[in-house]
Amino acid sequence: MESTSAIEQALEVAVASCDTLGCPPRLAAAIRYAVFPGGARIRPRLCLAIAAGCGEPHSPLAEATAASIELLHCASLVHDDLPCFDDAALRRNRPSVHRAFDERIALLVGDALIVLAFQNVARAFSAAAPRLPGIVLALGRAAGAPGGIVAGQAWECETATPLEEYRRLKTGALFVAATVGGALSAGADPTPWRTLGERLGEAYQLADDVRDALGTEEELGKNAHRDADLGRPTAVAELGLQGTVQRFDALMREATESIPQCPGAEFLRDLVELEAQRLLPASLLQRAA
Amino acid sequence: MESTSAIEQALEVAVASCDTLGCPPRLAAAIRYAVFPGGARIRPRLCLAIAAGCGEPHSPLAEATAASIELLHCASLVHDDLPCFDDAALRRNRPSVHRAFDERIALLVGDALIVLAFQNVARAFSAAAPRLPGIVLALGRAAGAPGGIVAGQAWECETATPLEEYRRLKTGALFVAATVGGALSAGADPTPWRTLGERLGEAYQLADDVRDALGTEEELGKNAHRDADLGRPTAVAELGLQGTVQRFDALMREATESIPQCPGAEFLRDLVELEAQRLLPASLLQRAA
Repeated sequence: MESTSAIEQALEVAVASCDTLGCPPRLAAAIRYAVFPGGARIRPRLCLAIAAGCGEPHSPLAEATAASIELLHCASLVHDDLPCFDDAALRRNRPSVHRAFDERIALLVGDALIVLAFQNVARAFSAAAPRLPGIVLALGRAAGAPGGIVAGQAWECETATPLEEYRRLKTGALFVAATVGGALSAGADPTPWRTLGERLGEAYQLADDVRDALGTEEELGKNAHRDADLGRPTAVAELGLQGTVQRFDALMREATESIPQCPGAEFLRDLVELEAQRLLPASLLQRAA
Repeated sequence: MESTSAIEQALEVAVASCDTLGCPPRLAAAIRYAVFPGGARIRPRLCLAIAAGCGEPHSPLAEATAASIELLHCASLVHDDLPCFDDAALRRNRPSVHRAFDERIALLVGDALIVLAFQNVARAFSAAAPRLPGIVLALGRAAGAPGGIVAGQAWECETATPLEEYRRLKTGALFVAATVGGALSAGADPTPWRTLGERLGEAYQLADDVRDALGTEEELGKNAHRDADLGRPTAVAELGLQGTVQRFDALMREATESIPQCPGAEFLRDLVELEAQRLLPASLLQRAA
């Protein structure tokens, strides 16, 4: 999955639109801090890859969609890190937003990024309005309730948390938005792309659980063993380390097999394989052996 | 401004879409609690009045736009009431959302309502997609940064708060979305409707300041004298009570005069006059004398 600079540029365009003269300076600085420098940008890269696979590489529509997906992801990280949830001190090897600024600013940054995600696609799709309703609905479904990140986070506030559902909403939903959004932005039928997003999302969450259990803070860029410390439901706690890795491998196989006929199917299958190695490198798995 | 039942029904349709089987039950209950029963629904009533004034009464597009504007308003109330900001115990004569549920749920309710506002118009405008980019941009501008509610709230986090700007963003922005959104949903040019939204928004904020200074908790449905207690910049503190009422009258006059030529101009002028009396009734002003 290439196109890193296209993603950073699309994010820069989006952020610049609210980071103008007249914006309260601490809010503007904190929005920028929450978005740059980013992590692996895996969701927007996935979105661009699908659009390219559907025959529209270098598409400004796909780039805007990809950026909006990443903005929603950043928003969820900022709100999840807040004291009332994870109370996380670190994110991407730096103080989390509420530690670097304050809790009020972090609350507003999350709100601003959610709004910005929708503004950003509305701007980009002004000349392709017939595609906009689908894009907004795909972003909304992934971000909100009952099928998105907010609902996933809300399962943490219930006495009984259905693990599969939690994982599907907290991570899977935005991966589905990436594959579906990539297809929609290219004018393709999004339906056959849902499974790829679902499988990759679940696999990514499993890999995250494994890294949280095995990794160090320096490798993770955030506090390690955080899930266990918070008594959070994780795959490793449920399936064991080996069981989790087996499930990860099965999901990545299913992901590859789900890729529908399209101009870039071969290219996408190669990408999924590379991604599997990046997510759970052999060097990490040796620690589990 | 009539159409109360149309607004409640449009809000019900919007909320029902996330309050389905599979939504975490406490989140679903809290979303409903944040939206029903409402306050005066002044912003959505304004939006419908403008659409009717532009020649499209009883328009499902205007009703969806009106509902989305109210959802953004509800979201901002829930987040503003949180402990890190106002720490308000009461809202609409009941415990605020974070008191009735908890802080985590209140954070998520605000997020969910922002997302829902955009989903809701995307659904309604699927068959009128060319109007959707303008609607999304109008909602986003009013809700986000640098020109909307989030930016207004962020001015509270700066050492120096420009009062005019604060008021314009915290209240005026959503009134502008109501007039502009009403015109856009009716397929009319939104430009001549901005001034009406700006003047009404500023007047409404002034009336709110006066009621906060003079009213009782029972009348307000929230804690009285809150602004003064929080050392918040208010018009009453700056202009005095009489000066504030004079400014209010001038704004309502300017609002009436700004109404552009349209099929329902006369009807709209009458509405503005009624609204002025509702916002600052003579009985309240006698207390200030």
